[in-house]
Amino acid sequence: MSRFNHILVTGAAGALGRQLRTAGRELAPRIRLSDRVPSTDLQAHEEDFVADLGDFEAVRNAVKGCDAIIHLGGQAIEGPWADILNANIVGTYNVYEAARQCGVSRIIYASSIHAVGYYDRTQTIDASAPPRPDSLYGVSKAYAENLSRYYFDKFGIETVCLRIGSCFPKPADRRHLITWLSYDDFRQLVTACLDAPRVGHMISFATSANNQSFWDNRQASVLGYAPRDNAADFQSEVFGMTAQGDPNDPAVRFQGGSFCAAGHFDDTLKKG
Amino acid sequence: MSRFNHILVTGAAGALGRQLRTAGRELAPRIRLSDRVPSTDLQAHEEDFVADLGDFEAVRNAVKGCDAIIHLGGQAIEGPWADILNANIVGTYNVYEAARQCGVSRIIYASSIHAVGYYDRTQTIDASAPPRPDSLYGVSKAYAENLSRYYFDKFGIETVCLRIGSCFPKPADRRHLITWLSYDDFRQLVTACLDAPRVGHMISFATSANNQSFWDNRQASVLGYAPRDNAADFQSEVFGMTAQGDPNDPAVRFQGGSFCAAGHFDDTLKKG
Amino acid sequence: MSRFNHILVTGAAGALGRQLRTAGRELAPRIRLSDRVPSTDLQAHEEDFVADLGDFEAVRNAVKGCDAIIHLGGQAIEGPWADILNANIVGTYNVYEAARQCGVSRIIYASSIHAVGYYDRTQTIDASAPPRPDSLYGVSKAYAENLSRYYFDKFGIETVCLRIGSCFPKPADRRHLITWLSYDDFRQLVTACLDAPRVGHMISFATSANNQSFWDNRQASVLGYAPRDNAADFQSEVFGMTAQGDPNDPAVRFQGGSFCAAGHFDDTLKKG
Amino acid sequence: MSRFNHILVTGAAGALGRQLRTAGRELAPRIRLSDRVPSTDLQAHEEDFVADLGDFEAVRNAVKGCDAIIHLGGQAIEGPWADILNANIVGTYNVYEAARQCGVSRIIYASSIHAVGYYDRTQTIDASAPPRPDSLYGVSKAYAENLSRYYFDKFGIETVCLRIGSCFPKPADRRHLITWLSYDDFRQLVTACLDAPRVGHMISFATSANNQSFWDNRQASVLGYAPRDNAADFQSEVFGMTAQGDPNDPAVRFQGGSFCAAGHFDDTLKKG
Amino acid sequence: MSRFNHILVTGAAGALGRQLRTAGRELAPRIRLSDRVPSTDLQAHEEDFVADLGDFEAVRNAVKGCDAIIHLGGQAIEGPWADILNANIVGTYNVYEAARQCGVSRIIYASSIHAVGYYDRTQTIDASAPPRPDSLYGVSKAYAENLSRYYFDKFGIETVCLRIGSCFPKPADRRHLITWLSYDDFRQLVTACLDAPRVGHMISFATSANNQSFWDNRQASVLGYAPRDNAADFQSEVFGMTAQGDPNDPAVRFQGGSFCAAGHFDDTLKKG
Amino acid sequence: MSRFNHILVTGAAGALGRQLRTAGRELAPRIRLSDRVPSTDLQAHEEDFVADLGDFEAVRNAVKGCDAIIHLGGQAIEGPWADILNANIVGTYNVYEAARQCGVSRIIYASSIHAVGYYDRTQTIDASAPPRPDSLYGVSKAYAENLSRYYFDKFGIETVCLRIGSCFPKPADRRHLITWLSYDDFRQLVTACLDAPRVGHMISFATSANNQSFWDNRQASVLGYAPRDNAADFQSEVFGMTAQGDPNDPAVRFQGGSFCAAGHFDDTLKKG
Repeated sequence: MSRFNHILVTGAAGALGRQLRTAGRELAPRIRLSDRVPSTDLQAHEEDFVADLGDFEAVRNAVKGCDAIIHLGGQAIEGPWADILNANIVGTYNVYEAARQCGVSRIIYASSIHAVGYYDRTQTIDASAPPRPDSLYGVSKAYAENLSRYYFDKFGIETVCLRIGSCFPKPADRRHLITWLSYDDFRQLVTACLDAPRVGHMISFATSANNQSFWDNRQASVLGYAPRDNAADFQSEVFGMTAQGDPNDPAVRFQGGSFCAAGHFDDTLKKG
Repeated sequence: MSRFNHILVTGAAGALGRQLRTAGRELAPRIRLSDRVPSTDLQAHEEDFVADLGDFEAVRNAVKGCDAIIHLGGQAIEGPWADILNANIVGTYNVYEAARQCGVSRIIYASSIHAVGYYDRTQTIDASAPPRPDSLYGVSKAYAENLSRYYFDKFGIETVCLRIGSCFPKPADRRHLITWLSYDDFRQLVTACLDAPRVGHMISFATSANNQSFWDNRQASVLGYAPRDNAADFQSEVFGMTAQGDPNDPAVRFQGGSFCAAGHFDDTLKKG
Repeated sequence: MSRFNHILVTGAAGALGRQLRTAGRELAPRIRLSDRVPSTDLQAHEEDFVADLGDFEAVRNAVKGCDAIIHLGGQAIEGPWADILNANIVGTYNVYEAARQCGVSRIIYASSIHAVGYYDRTQTIDASAPPRPDSLYGVSKAYAENLSRYYFDKFGIETVCLRIGSCFPKPADRRHLITWLSYDDFRQLVTACLDAPRVGHMISFATSANNQSFWDNRQASVLGYAPRDNAADFQSEVFGMTAQGDPNDPAVRFQGGSFCAAGHFDDTLKKG
Repeated sequence: MSRFNHILVTGAAGALGRQLRTAGRELAPRIRLSDRVPSTDLQAHEEDFVADLGDFEAVRNAVKGCDAIIHLGGQAIEGPWADILNANIVGTYNVYEAARQCGVSRIIYASSIHAVGYYDRTQTIDASAPPRPDSLYGVSKAYAENLSRYYFDKFGIETVCLRIGSCFPKPADRRHLITWLSYDDFRQLVTACLDAPRVGHMISFATSANNQSFWDNRQASVLGYAPRDNAADFQSEVFGMTAQGDPNDPAVRFQGGSFCAAGHFDDTLKKG
Repeated sequence: MSRFNHILVTGAAGALGRQLRTAGRELAPRIRLSDRVPSTDLQAHEEDFVADLGDFEAVRNAVKGCDAIIHLGGQAIEGPWADILNANIVGTYNVYEAARQCGVSRIIYASSIHAVGYYDRTQTIDASAPPRPDSLYGVSKAYAENLSRYYFDKFGIETVCLRIGSCFPKPADRRHLITWLSYDDFRQLVTACLDAPRVGHMISFATSANNQSFWDNRQASVLGYAPRDNAADFQSEVFGMTAQGDPNDPAVRFQGGSFCAAGHFDDTLKKG
Repeated sequence: MSRFNHILVTGAAGALGRQLRTAGRELAPRIRLSDRVPSTDLQAHEEDFVADLGDFEAVRNAVKGCDAIIHLGGQAIEGPWADILNANIVGTYNVYEAARQCGVSRIIYASSIHAVGYYDRTQTIDASAPPRPDSLYGVSKAYAENLSRYYFDKFGIETVCLRIGSCFPKPADRRHLITWLSYDDFRQLVTACLDAPRVGHMISFATSANNQSFWDNRQASVLGYAPRDNAADFQSEVFGMTAQGDPNDPAVRFQGGSFCAAGHFDDTLKKG
């Protein structure tokens, strides 16, 4: 019943990767789990493949035999430039170039809010708004969106870039009331990206059906993503746990939150 | 209670026409049914009027005495140029010109997705997107949208152009998961077009509240159309009955579906 | 739990002001009620402050000690130019200038549909559409939106301008089916404006979740306003009570309704 | 040196057709002149072909052997519906269908300001503005723009639709100060359309470099059209010859000028 | 030859007013000069009328008998609120209301860059960008733009709002390289506004043909304004006389220049 | 007279770098020339600094003491991924990070048409159009545009990204008729970027004043770039030397020209 027979999940040992695995065979009859560390508790339809995204040959071997990729791997928050470069810039190139060489036809890419983190929280943007990354991490996400556009325009490999907000069990701070993506909604969205007959190259914002929003996801409406969770259900709890923010604090002012308030990561390293 | 006293329905013997009739007197106290063939099972408030849309005098007689028209008639799919020309191009001119001569103030026109069929399925368009017809049938629908704009700008005759997706009892293929319009929602939408105090000249997309969509219907939001059905309720059933499509097949790539994959109809006739 | 400690409500003795008071301490621990006439039935957390908006010293005294203002006061419908000038133009300047001098950081301003009343009812507009006021009253509302933008850009005072449609116990005529704002939804929206960590300078349309609409409120989506009432629930009742309108009557044609059909108020005075 | 070897010019005996002929062999080594009446004074590179656009076989014979078409033919102003239908609607279909059957790759189509004549003269529009025809003639022009879009999207036949303003020896009235297209600029524009390596499907406004304008032609900037004439050079002369207009006269208010002030042509016939 | 017979110029004794007078009878056969002080050196076609804009009866007497108004009068830079209120807010109301009562059909209004002064200098805006005034003066200009829109929508009085940049004999500082309007170009623009058969309600930016710009004046292109001067001709001179600015200084950062760097005028008064 | 005292030019030994040197001291009193190879014929105001962009310490030493950078260095056409990665991705990061550490306040960055090469040649785009790179080279250019946005939003370093078309002594093929940038215009544009008091973060297209264009450079109009050359002056010469293109050849169809027709560079290497 699934459109794809053998899907590679990168970053499979991370939080999002582990969540995806709970979908079982819904995604595909056969799922290859790749990460720098082994995945545990393999199910019958799962196979493990340890690989560093920065190593092209390893990545090509991970990709070989698969017809779709859910690319969650890489550095998932701001970090040293060397890590961003290796895991996200070189790593994502390796994934796309391996996909081209191996005939993969569709990739679901975990992009991020931090590709557009410097928009003011009071602006509602859609997917055509120019990137305003808030970190080197965000720069690497915008880079991958453009790289995947190139692989679609020239080689026909389809991609959905999911600009993930804050994917956690529940909203943990006031900004999450806007950006929260529940695990269930995340799984549903990935499934929709796989089921759609055609995705071309598309950018989809990825949050739950929160009352608060600064994103207009209209340009991805063909995916049929119908989120069911709403961060507003946790508002009282969150308000009780957290202090009010100052509207002029960069962490409150901009969509990217605390990423906008931080300096250059490598400075921190030196100071630390 | 109805805004109009006597409504002409063209194409009354077709599938959509018959559905409208189930609304009974809700549309108006008196309804005239027109088609090339007689309508059957007339109710007390209904009257039958056989007419060929290509015959101006017949159309004028059908229109005379009515204050609104629901214009569903004409060639409803791609066909020979001669038929498109007679039924849709000449026929719709006849309807509008008769309406002008007879003082009709509002027309609901059954336009079609095929007026914009060549947009990529991954694009979300609104009613201001330039037409990209996928067939001579689609050309005739775009023509009628412009013709009705002219009759509004110059003569003040109001029109709502309903760009109908796929109006069937239930979704029959995977594309219908995006384009389906249920019969109930169709009736509700036509009623809204009649009830509204003012419609000016407006284009409204016409689908049910399907999760998947490539249309942004914001520009018709004053109509208050609130669809209740959702093709997603039939997704498992449709997935079970139908094969996956190739994302590069024109029938999958474009909004118009199989109309985009077909050649010129008259060629088919010659070959057949 | 509230973001603000002491809120000034202007126009507190009017219909909207009295509705807000029913929210009790939800808005803030302490609420100062200001109007030209005294407010009655004060609760423990309320204090009364009689002031004319046209008197700067009175306004400054009303503002002193408050950290937020809900500015509902002033002339609430079309009236003599002298009243519009004093209550709305001078009055709103007085409120903002007093806010600047007293260090108020956020103002919720009751703007109006009449700032954009001359848009055709069949057009869907968003908050970036240039004002098209339908009355001197509407001109004064657009003026206040620009004044508050200035106080934000130069002095950092945050404002949400609420373009209120028709805030009544229930829809009273056919236009209200589009423009109605229920009292509950009004209270919820004001609360959302107070709770948001950052509002910058924002314009939010203010209606309930009516089926019919001519407003796209996307640009205020960060507020998380989730209206629960729907004028469509009263449609039969309203249709029963009211006559059909002529689509070319300015009161039907334009969003501002009867304000668009009226002449200059001062003429009326002279004639009367 | 020319991109095309054998060009068909329809409407060759009309004013614009005769102007094009003065370009001699610049357009192509061989030029076929088609009209309902014979062309006179044939040059060595010219050939004459009498045909009625409403006659498909005649049109196909006219097209056969040509690799490009400059389609100027048809009813050039408002006229009886029967004439518009035959010459412009059927006629243009005949041209495109013959082009498809005969392998023509590019068509330059003489569209008109009257496809958008109902825009207010104070609005600046570009080619993406929805058509607002001011006449049945204008409806037929908008129809041909959509028909040619269909033949490009489905069959790859390139078209430039030239929305011609007022192509005359010099501006004859005050509206021409905005809409004038000199004969030299017309020839230059047609040449640019032929020389361009790729035109796809494009709409280009067609006026000289007049100071006054209501058109933004940016979307056709790849054509490299660089008009050299300017109606402003004739302003004193025109002001001297013509009376001032009333800004509320439809002929002054709208871009289409007197076409907007006229009623339905067939009425005029009956009255006359 | 002129469209208007008797034109009132307010602010006639100011710098712009005196420049306009050099146009002599080009504007109209008869010109009434109004200001708080008498105009001197009257020509045969000129008449003087001393009036305070804040005095309605005086303004109505000044307007009586004129068929067009060039409204340059009022407070021309930031000043005390009381002055802005009286001269610009009340004064412009008085001009429009008198125009309505006296049957004036067209007004040319001297708006200002300071209505949009808070846009960043690196942003290119057109006339549809929402106002961002940089001063109470700028608020009063945006107010008058909206007021004139109201008088057009309801009463049909045409207005061109000229957002004047920096109208001086020559550019005096580096910002003027962007915003300069020469006296010749100013006169030409006003003449174009008077000559045009229809202006409706329009906003036109008003600078010379400077190389540098942050304004896209496309929406006023029907006026046919063709500026001939260019501040770039003075660049070396200006660079020689003036120091470089800091790109983060509000006076450099924003379009409004030093108005954005100033505080509230009345504070200055108190301090001074 | 120059805004900057000491400018670093990277890629100084390349064609564009050598052209810039002909401007002499106009750019700044002191110019440091950096490239992987030494620059020759140093003038008194020039100093040479050999450095590999991939070596951060070398880049930091090159940057130290400069207050602005004209960053032309790196891989200038499509090449092996390893080269793009080292010279353009790592190299440009090194330049910006060194600029941040050394207090450089403005950078002029040589971006490229190949960041948007996959737009159809018949589309006119402005700087807000999402990148559609046509090569890994183009991906690296879009990356640098985003990286520089980040360094502006977070650290305040100003950048103008110049999307250079085809900078050669004269147009060499038919596509250059659209994309040509003369050396004189290039120098003028760089000078404008240095002279402007404020550039923020800006993308400017960079071609001469060619008749043909597919770029709308309005969003950079504050720079005051006034190109003087026009590729159309070479049209006859170019047409004589070059064959006509096929409109469906990717090299003709897309803005990026032959870059769009090429495969993956590393494949070519393997095959070679």
